Formats: sequence, C-alpha cells, structure tokens
Amino acid sequence: MTPEPSSLRIPAEALRRQIMLVLAAWGMAEDQARITAERMVEADLRGVDSHGIANLPLYDEFRRGGHVNFRANVRVVRETPVTALFDGDGGLGHYPSTLAIDLAIEKCAQAGLALAVVRNSNHYGAAGVYVLRAAEKGFIGLCGTNTYKASIVPTFAAEPMFGTNPLAFAAPAKRNPPFVLDMATSTAAIGKFKLALMHGKSVPEGWAVDEQGRPLTDPARAIALRLITPLGGTRELGSHKGYGLAAMVEILSAILPGALATPVRVRASPAGLFDIGHFFLAIDPGCFREKGAFEADLDAMIDVLHAARRADPGQPVLVAGDPEIAEIEARTRQGIPVPRPLLDAIRAIAEAAPCEFVLQARG
Amino acid sequence: MTPEPSSLRIPAEALRRQIMLVLAAWGMAEDQARITAERMVEADLRGVDSHGIANLPLYDEFRRGGHVNFRANVRVVRETPVTALFDGDGGLGHYPSTLAIDLAIEKCAQAGLALAVVRNSNHYGAAGVYVLRAAEKGFIGLCGTNTYKASIVPTFAAEPMFGTNPLAFAAPAKRNPPFVLDMATSTAAIGKFKLALMHGKSVPEGWAVDEQGRPLTDPARAIALRLITPLGGTRELGSHKGYGLAAMVEILSAILPGALATPVRVRASPAGLFDIGHFFLAIDPGCFREKGAFEADLDAMIDVLHAARRADPGQPVLVAGDPEIAEIEARTRQGIPVPRPLLDAIRAIAEAAPCEFVLQARG
Repeated sequence: MTPEPSSLRIPAEALRRQIMLVLAAWGMAEDQARITAERMVEADLRGVDSHGIANLPLYDEFRRGGHVNFRANVRVVRETPVTALFDGDGGLGHYPSTLAIDLAIEKCAQAGLALAVVRNSNHYGAAGVYVLRAAEKGFIGLCGTNTYKASIVPTFAAEPMFGTNPLAFAAPAKRNPPFVLDMATSTAAIGKFKLALMHGKSVPEGWAVDEQGRPLTDPARAIALRLITPLGGTRELGSHKGYGLAAMVEILSAILPGALATPVRVRASPAGLFDIGHFFLAIDPGCFREKGAFEADLDAMIDVLHAARRADPGQPVLVAGDPEIAEIEARTRQGIPVPRPLLDAIRAIAEAAPCEFVLQARG
Repeated sequence: MTPEPSSLRIPAEALRRQIMLVLAAWGMAEDQARITAERMVEADLRGVDSHGIANLPLYDEFRRGGHVNFRANVRVVRETPVTALFDGDGGLGHYPSTLAIDLAIEKCAQAGLALAVVRNSNHYGAAGVYVLRAAEKGFIGLCGTNTYKASIVPTFAAEPMFGTNPLAFAAPAKRNPPFVLDMATSTAAIGKFKLALMHGKSVPEGWAVDEQGRPLTDPARAIALRLITPLGGTRELGSHKGYGLAAMVEILSAILPGALATPVRVRASPAGLFDIGHFFLAIDPGCFREKGAFEADLDAMIDVLHAARRADPGQPVLVAGDPEIAEIEARTRQGIPVPRPLLDAIRAIAEAAPCEFVLQARG
C-alpha cells in the first residue's frame, strides 16, 4: 500500500520505542510498557492502523479522564488446570491479555484445552495479535473483548447497546501462514468510518443509521451519533445474526469474567475505570489428530480456497490473514505509514508526558 | 404463528413416534432412533421447521444414495479429561452429537471446560438443541457443524466452497430463558429460500448470486444454483466476515476432528458416506464467578436489551432465543404445523419402510 501523501514511513522499532517512552512517563512499569508497545506495533505491522500507535491519543484521553490505571497490579485471582481469571486492575488491556493468552497456551500444552479471561481491564488493541500467539505455538486460538462505548444498535432497537465487540480466531497451517480471522461484529469497524472521513468519502448505505433508523452515509455524523449496524446491516440481510454474535462476545468477554457488560454500562453510565473484559481460548489439535494432520488438512483447505474460480479474474480469492501477511512484509521493509496529524499529536503527547520524541521518517 | 391453510397441527409426541418407527424400519437401533427423533422434534417445537421432521425425506434420499449408515457403531476413539473425539461411523449426526455434548457437559462438570468433536458423521439437525443441553445444566455451550453440500460463495469467488456452516451458542440466565443463538453463517439459511419458494415470494437482493455474481432473487433458481452469500452479503457490507466465520466453523467442525472439509469435498466429489464433522464446547461459569453471579449479570443484560428504545414502537427488541420460546409454548399447546405435501411424503416413506403411519391432526 502506498502511504497517503501526508504520511511518513517510520520503522516499527522507533514506534515501539516511542510508545514505551510515553507509557513509562505515564507511570507504567517497564515490562508492561514493553509488552503493550509490542502488541500495538504488531497491529501497525499487520496493517491494522486503527489499533496501533494511532490509539496513543485515545489512551491519553482515557488517562486524563481517569479511565485507566497506569500503575496496574495485574494478577490471577482464580485458577484451575484449564482455566484462569485475571484482574487487570484498571490498566490497559494489552499486558493482562498477553499474560492471559500465554497462560492459556501454557495450560493448553499440558491439558489440551484452556480458557483464560480478564476483568477490570481496558482497550486491548487488535484482537488478532493474541490468537496469533496461539497459532504460532501450534494451537487454535479464539478471543474477544467487549468495549467501553456502545455503538452497535440491536435489530429492532434505536439506541446502541454493544461496542463493536471483535472476535478473533487463528489456526495453524504448515505450508501456509496461519488462518487469522479478526473481525468486528458490526458491519464495519469504527476505524473504517474514520478512514472514510479522512479521505472525504461517504460510507456505504447499511453501515450506520440515524436516530430514526434511516441509513446514514455521512461518516462525520455516523461517528458523532455512533449508531452502527450489526454485521448483516438490516433485519432482511441478517443483522440479527451480527447482533447475536456481538451479544455472544459480550457474554464471553464481560459476563464470564465479571466485567461490566456494555448494555448495563449504557444504562448506568458509570464514571472512572471502564472495567472491560476479554476471553482467550486455546485448543490443541494434537488431542484429536495425529501429529501434522490438522495442519496438512488446513493447508489443503486454504489451497482449494485460493484456487477457487474468481468472480473477477484480476482479484484473487483471499483467506483470512492474507492481507495482513502482505502488509507485514511491506511494512517491515518500508516502515509503517504514520499520517502527519498523528505524528503531530504524538509529538505533543511526548512533550506533555514528558518524554523524548524519537519518531523520524525512514532514511 | 397461524399454520398455513395447507398445514395440519400434529402433537409432538406423534411426530417423535413416527420418526422412531421410520428410523427403526431403516435399521437404526432403538436408543439411537429415540434420541434422533427427540432432537428432530425439539427443532420442530422450537419453530425450526427446516430441521425437524421435514428432514425425513432428505434422510431417505441419503439412505437411497448410500450416504448414511443406519447401523452405525458410534464410539469414542480418543479421550482426555477435557477432550473427546467421537467416530460417528457414517450414521446420522443427532445421536453422536447428543453423546458428544453430553460427554462435554460431564467433563465440564468435573474440569470446568471441555471440548468434544465428532468425525465421520452426517446431518445433525438444528445446532441450537445441543448447546441448549449445556445451558440447561448451567454451562455455556458453543457448537457447529460443516455440511455435505457447498453453498456459501467466498468473497471474490464464483463457486461455493462452504455449507451454511451454522454456529450455535447458549448461556444460562436465571429469571430469563437461556440466551440461545443458532445461526447459519450465510446471509440466509437454505430453509428460508425453500420457505420463499413455498409462498411464491422472491428473496431479497443480497441473499444469493448467479454464476456471474449478480444478485439473484428467484428462490427456485437460487436453490438450483446454490450460490448463496456469506453473512454480510457483499464485500462492501462485510461478506468477508461471514466467509471468515464459515471457515472458522469448518476448521473447528471438520478439520479438528479429521472429517472431510467441504472445500476439499467440492474438488474431490467423493461418493458414499459424507464424513461430516461437528464440535461441542462446554464452559462452566463457576470457574470464574461466584455461584449465581453469571446468571444474574446475564439477566441484567437481557433486561436492558428488552427495554432498549425501539425503532418501531410495535416491535419489541428481541434477544436470541426469544422467538423459539414463543414457538415452544404455542406448539406444545397447539401441535406442530405439518404441511400436507410433507405429510404425504412421510406417509409414502412409512409405507415403503415399511412401518406404521401414525400422524393424525390434533383433535
């Protein structure tokens, strides 16, 4: 992807260092800051621009609003050989989520199956980076999170009740990169509205509605109203399924660990820490298949999908994870495109933190 | 729901008995026939007309085509304290699926978490009835299946690669009935096309496409071509998410147990037994929450959703499982509506089996 003319290409390592410097200046312990920065820059490398360094201004806003604890004492509060409950102590979600998926992987390696959940957490960035850790160890990963702000309007409703409640799933292949699905359960992620706004484009009919439930195509109004459709868009095209998936993610992410469910938050509008929740499931295919058989069968499926007859001869059929792999290769080589306004915002954040500003365009 | 004028209301017990008589005449052991009939009639009671007794003619077709083994020796082939792999021996899926979810529930009661998968199986009816068994025991249930026939066209492709790969999820509440999501990962289930055809209606644009990828609204052609869209409908409205979900269900249902993945089947077109797979996950909220806390929080969420501001004052906001609860009450009282053509088909099946024909309209 060519960066926007107003973007600079910055090496991943510099972004990681900048995020660490800011988080440390905000009071976060070194290991937490390092892991948080790693997860954020992994999102940037994968092309998920909305969930990497672009979130630093959002986290600054949370900080100033008293919604996040940068001195969090993350701990396991309940545990069995196949389950674990983490308390995030109000901190950002990346660090407890990394501990949680890694503990699920560890337990899965022993028992074949494990589920770790996190309560009292906050925004955890891109869901895909957590399940990818499971796939890299040879396990299937499934995860999700609820969010701090409602935006999905249930079918037949006129107010938002769920965040975009993303679901991510990864499975290991052998010849192919892992299958990695990372999707908001809304028709479109909030980041896509922001992207349309930035490019001065309207959004497709079916992504958002106004207070009367009529389709809304102006991204600025859509972001302001935050009335977005569940996957499916309309009742006729299956929005009750997207709504059901958003509710499923809410139940597993928030109600299971005992975090605050977004619909309840909508009614109560509590101040202070957000109390967001996440879940992380790991499955060992080795409990069911001979060594290598799962990966070989997944490779065979991926190959058939790639070879499927195309609707447009010039557009290959993709498998979940393909676009991110292409981005990782390009961005590792060329650096990560950072729009100038974001760069300016980060410079201001660094000055206020205060900490060193280390972002410079690649050679 | 008022039955179509051409439908008769038949008590659930008569349908159960009729299905058992037919399956037994086809060679199925008594316990397997009883359990299969129970699952099928549960679907009918829940209003899922496409997955109850209406499937008997389909199973007869499978039988005549040599695609199902009515003398299946279902067994556990691999097992750990939290996992189990069943071999369905080519029989219908309802019986091994019931054993699998019940074993997952049993292991979950011991360990807090369990996953049972089935290979070498066949059509298992309605996904919702299996996860409901978990919710009735106080556990969260998640399940899915792949299918014998491809119909979902991946984003950017021009041929079908996945079945409608349904996903079902249930969670126990206390004051409210369980949350039960049961959804095809296509925009619409095949049954909805058949319903439109039966009523002489066209289907909405976005449900199916023709060989050139153009929207198709004629249900007869859509059923014949079987090129249906993943949830989302078009790339612009998120079909890549529905496609990703269908692939996720395929990986968990077919590749994990070692059944035949549908895309591979599309290429190979093997004759004989279908080798379909299913997965069943059970989670004990008691590993994470104090007794009753999960159910109370889910009740609170469901209550807020029911009380959400309505887009149309006359149309309440529903929660997954609500429509089925209403059907169960009505159909238990009034009987299950069976269209006359289906009744005639079952009479013919009973005569050919041969077995007694016991279906009579209610009083």
